[in-house]
Parts: sequence; C-alpha cells; structure tokens
Amino acid sequence: MFWLLFSVFLVACLGAGATGGLFPPGPWYRALNKPWFTPPDWVFPVTWLVLYLCMATAGARVAMTEGAGLALALWALQIAFNGLWTPVFFGLRNIRLGMAVVSFLWLTVFFAMVAHWQVDTLAGVLFVPYLVWVTIAAALNAGVWRMNPDAARNPPDVAS
Amino acid sequence: MFWLLFSVFLVACLGAGATGGLFPPGPWYRALNKPWFTPPDWVFPVTWLVLYLCMATAGARVAMTEGAGLALALWALQIAFNGLWTPVFFGLRNIRLGMAVVSFLWLTVFFAMVAHWQVDTLAGVLFVPYLVWVTIAAALNAGVWRMNPDAARNPPDVAS
Repeated sequence: MFWLLFSVFLVACLGAGATGGLFPPGPWYRALNKPWFTPPDWVFPVTWLVLYLCMATAGARVAMTEGAGLALALWALQIAFNGLWTPVFFGLRNIRLGMAVVSFLWLTVFFAMVAHWQVDTLAGVLFVPYLVWVTIAAALNAGVWRMNPDAARNPPDVAS
Repeated sequence: MFWLLFSVFLVACLGAGATGGLFPPGPWYRALNKPWFTPPDWVFPVTWLVLYLCMATAGARVAMTEGAGLALALWALQIAFNGLWTPVFFGLRNIRLGMAVVSFLWLTVFFAMVAHWQVDTLAGVLFVPYLVWVTIAAALNAGVWRMNPDAARNPPDVAS
C-alpha cells in the first residue's frame, strides 16, 4: 500500500513540477538582475526532484495512518499552490504576484509540516527541506523584485 | 472539523482555479474555431465554483473517515492536474499538450471518484458532476484541436 500511495503522491508532485519544464527560465529571466545567492538553473529541477520524493514519502506514510485527514488536506493544499508559482512567475512574468503566491505557498507548507509531524514524526521531518527551499525561493523572488523594479511594475500582457 | 477540512480543500481548489483568472481566454482563443457545444465564457467560472464546492465537500467528508488515505492521495493528484490545464492551454496556447493534460486529469478524477465512493457514497456522488464537466472540457479541447489544425501544430514560443 505504501508504494501505491507513494506513486499517487509522486505523480501529483510531477504534475505540479511539470510547470517548471513548461515555463522554463527564458531570455526575460536571464536579463533580470538576480541576488548573489541565486543558484544556477540546473539546481532547481534537481532540488525539486529530491523534495518531491520527500513529500511523496511523507504523504504516503501519513496516508497509512489513522486520523491523518487534516494533514492530507494540507498536503493537497500545498501541491495546488506549488504548481501555481512557475506559471505566474515565468509564464505571466509577474514578479509581484509570484511573491504573493510563494508567500502563501510557504504558509501552506508550514502548516502541512506541522500537521504531518503530529501524525508521524518522520513525515514532518521530510517537510523541513521543502520549507527551507520555499524560504530560499521566496527570498529569490523578493530579491528579483527589489533589483528589477521596472520589470516588477510592468508585467507583459499575456492575454494578447 | 468538517468546516476546517472543507476550507482547506476549498482553498486548494481556488489555488488551482486561480489559473482561470490568471490565464484568461484572450484574442488567441476568441479567434479559434470552436465546436457547436462550446459554452459562453461566463459558464466556466460559475461551473468550476460549483464543482469546487462539491470537491471540497467530498474531500472533507472523506478526510473525517478512517481508511481514506488512498482517496485523499487521489484528491491531491486530481487538484495538481486540475491547475495544470489552463496554463498549458491558455498560457502556452498548446492545444495538443492541453489535450494530454485534460485526458490525464479525466483519469485522475475517475479514480478519485471511485476511491471516494468506496469510503463515502455521497463523496463519490459529489465527484460525478466534476467527471462529467472534465469530459465536456476534453471534448471541447479535442474539437478545438480538430477545427484548428494550424494553431494546434504551431503553439507560440512563450519563453522568448
């Protein structure tokens, strides 16, 4: 049962993670000023893959435990917002809205971590690197906003 | 507890549904040939709001039941792909990739419906209108593909 649950959660992660391949860092992103702590592009997919394996493991462990309803609801909440940041930042190139999304994502990951911890300690621990990474991602988004005020003020009109 | 769970699931739905407002039907979509059964634009947000209320209710009912791990994993899986279609179709304007996403979404909703039904009959029933709507959405995507072969063959390069 663990592996079935793990697979379902992992595919959910890959669905959210697919946005990274669909909305890649293009010329717009390369032209932006970035904070000194910005990792090279290849670090992002590698890190996300590791985090997705952790999240899927945490979800599967909790899903096999009774009384995990709230933890699993929060697991669903965080993945819904996990998949939202990339289309907003790289798709809409909306730095300010990206900041709002990553900030709310941070909250959902924090509450998911706490709820998983209450059900299964290891599951909670498996959310820690995810929360750390979203903290870094939020700092990157904030740094890009601060260092590119014009780009932040004037996102392109994608509908036209 | 129901209302807390309902709220968490509903916010997850709204996270996925936000893509509808972020990637609205623009001039590109309006210029496409559409099947005769294409609803007017306003029908989509109204329908999704009703479906999100059904999905959140189903998730909350199941989350309060023991042995709901697989159903809730599938709930998370379907919401991850629910939020993927709009950025692919309206953001990337990739009709063929949109067809792949909505087809996989249909499968995730079907399995989520079955798993919810096994835990709570009403929860399973609440997924039926969702599955019907995704079937219609898939038919729309397929119709748009068939009626706009050039647009389907040549999605714009959004990265540049």
